[in-house]
Amino acid sequence: MKTKFLLALLAVSFVGTAAAQVKPEDAIKFRQSGYAFMAWNMGRIKANVEGQYNKEEVIKAANAIQAIANSGMGALYLPGTDKGKGWEETKVKPELFTNKEGVGKVAGAFVKEANEMAKVAATGDVAAVKEQVGKLGGTCKGCHDDFKIKK
Amino acid sequence: MKTKFLLALLAVSFVGTAAAQVKPEDAIKFRQSGYAFMAWNMGRIKANVEGQYNKEEVIKAANAIQAIANSGMGALYLPGTDKGKGWEETKVKPELFTNKEGVGKVAGAFVKEANEMAKVAATGDVAAVKEQVGKLGGTCKGCHDDFKIKK
Repeated sequence: MKTKFLLALLAVSFVGTAAAQVKPEDAIKFRQSGYAFMAWNMGRIKANVEGQYNKEEVIKAANAIQAIANSGMGALYLPGTDKGKGWEETKVKPELFTNKEGVGKVAGAFVKEANEMAKVAATGDVAAVKEQVGKLGGTCKGCHDDFKIKK
Repeated sequence: MKTKFLLALLAVSFVGTAAAQVKPEDAIKFRQSGYAFMAWNMGRIKANVEGQYNKEEVIKAANAIQAIANSGMGALYLPGTDKGKGWEETKVKPELFTNKEGVGKVAGAFVKEANEMAKVAATGDVAAVKEQVGKLGGTCKGCHDDFKIKK
């Protein structure tokens, strides 16, 4: 039993080590990359609903946002990354590391609307896409208002 | 007929305008973000096959890579972005803008293996995932060798 317990502890510590392999500056860089790549794709969807509509481009953009939203980026908010530089100085507010309930709420809303965006994009219904991009953008803003420093 | 032709020209010019709305520095930033985000996910898949395997994490990571690979990042290689700074100075070789056939070949191989990676991840077969991550990594390297400046 004691051996089993020690092995379990060892396993946990290995998992810890694996997670810790991402350096703080890389974790910040990766999360900034995820948001920037989603911003490109949000911009593309908006350009499509405001101008010439290309169903295939909107599907690709929505799928990218959906996959990034569902990728588990929360893992990139490592302890100690409330300050620091990735591609640039992080704009995260310290509240993101303490207000678990608030984070869970905005993250959940974002993932829900990102999943819906991919579904709506697949239909090619421009009016519905326009409405959904508004809803999705609202969840981006909701998180930014609470957890991103305005600079 | 003449009006129709002029309208068609106008439409083309609007499409051009929409595409041009992405500034060169943003195009470089967005593509650097896509590659960095994929790098995080490749790293996660590797850590999983080498250590404690978490099927759900590998699926999420593979789906993110697949969606980014299929997002149409080629559009971010705007004319004039062979030099310039996004998050950092671009490392693209000028050949990427001239060797269309070579680019098509490496890009096609990459998308193929990224799609396969997502399929294999869904099975949870660790040995197959390990093999596929090698194949996918090979297509990353293939493109880097030909089109990325070593710095």
